[in-house]
Amino acid sequence: MMRIIGIDPGLRNLGWGVIDVDGNRLSHVANGVCQSQGDEPLAQRLLDLHQQLTQVFATYQPVSAAIEQTFVNKDGAGTLKLGQARGIAMLVPAQAGLPVGEYAPNKIKKTVVGAGHADKQQVAHMVKVQLPGVVLNGPDATDALAIAICHAHHGGASSLAAAVERASA
Amino acid sequence: MMRIIGIDPGLRNLGWGVIDVDGNRLSHVANGVCQSQGDEPLAQRLLDLHQQLTQVFATYQPVSAAIEQTFVNKDGAGTLKLGQARGIAMLVPAQAGLPVGEYAPNKIKKTVVGAGHADKQQVAHMVKVQLPGVVLNGPDATDALAIAICHAHHGGASSLAAAVERASA
Repeated sequence: MMRIIGIDPGLRNLGWGVIDVDGNRLSHVANGVCQSQGDEPLAQRLLDLHQQLTQVFATYQPVSAAIEQTFVNKDGAGTLKLGQARGIAMLVPAQAGLPVGEYAPNKIKKTVVGAGHADKQQVAHMVKVQLPGVVLNGPDATDALAIAICHAHHGGASSLAAAVERASA
Repeated sequence: MMRIIGIDPGLRNLGWGVIDVDGNRLSHVANGVCQSQGDEPLAQRLLDLHQQLTQVFATYQPVSAAIEQTFVNKDGAGTLKLGQARGIAMLVPAQAGLPVGEYAPNKIKKTVVGAGHADKQQVAHMVKVQLPGVVLNGPDATDALAIAICHAHHGGASSLAAAVERASA
């Protein structure tokens, strides 16, 4: 059995979702959102996200992590904000000694829904189908679970092998 | 006396410079560059930067920190990379309990050189004039010292007051 965490980075809402993978069987463990307050100084917001996400890792002890590849657009200020949150989202698994898989949004949708241009409702529906009994804590946590499911299908095994190799090196 | 660290964030080269401020007198403490290797996975690079910068804080124990405000351009991929490094650069002082001042590049140049559009050589020259005996460890460390000098002139005192207030709250 392997426990995977998916992370959907954002400065205000950073979604996370943890699943267990046992052969072909997936099961839901937990999902939620780390949050920072827009009226706090940026450094404090990053610290808040780092502390909350570190707590999630300590609680659920995933052995593999994945994050969405970010495509940048013309909103430079938005890209910078997202980049700062994404730095924290990648630091926390690295501090736990885990490799971090990265997947393009289209690959995540294609894996979870079967179509690269699925909308948010379709993704939420298929996450529920693949993780029976899950209660979704909002769109960011839903996306994070979709990322974890994608990682289970594509990269989980190889990245676990890398982690084991690293741990025993 | 107050010890200030300036940070010039970058994913490959993250410059830092530490100065002491005693009334109107500035003196150099140390400067250098935290580095990550371009062929490493991004999460590992961010971890490397975090560990190196955390070590700098542990060694020099600054009580106030400042960072350059980033102006985003049309290079979205570059902005994202910088944002990720900048997230780490702001997390480390926040973890040490320090507020982080932010200054626009033009304000830093105007403070250090007297002109908002000074070139790198002029900045390096005036950093040397204001910190007698300093040996500059490259352009990123030089920029970081310029940021620290700017903070000493503009925000150091008030941000120290805020830090003291926070610590005693």
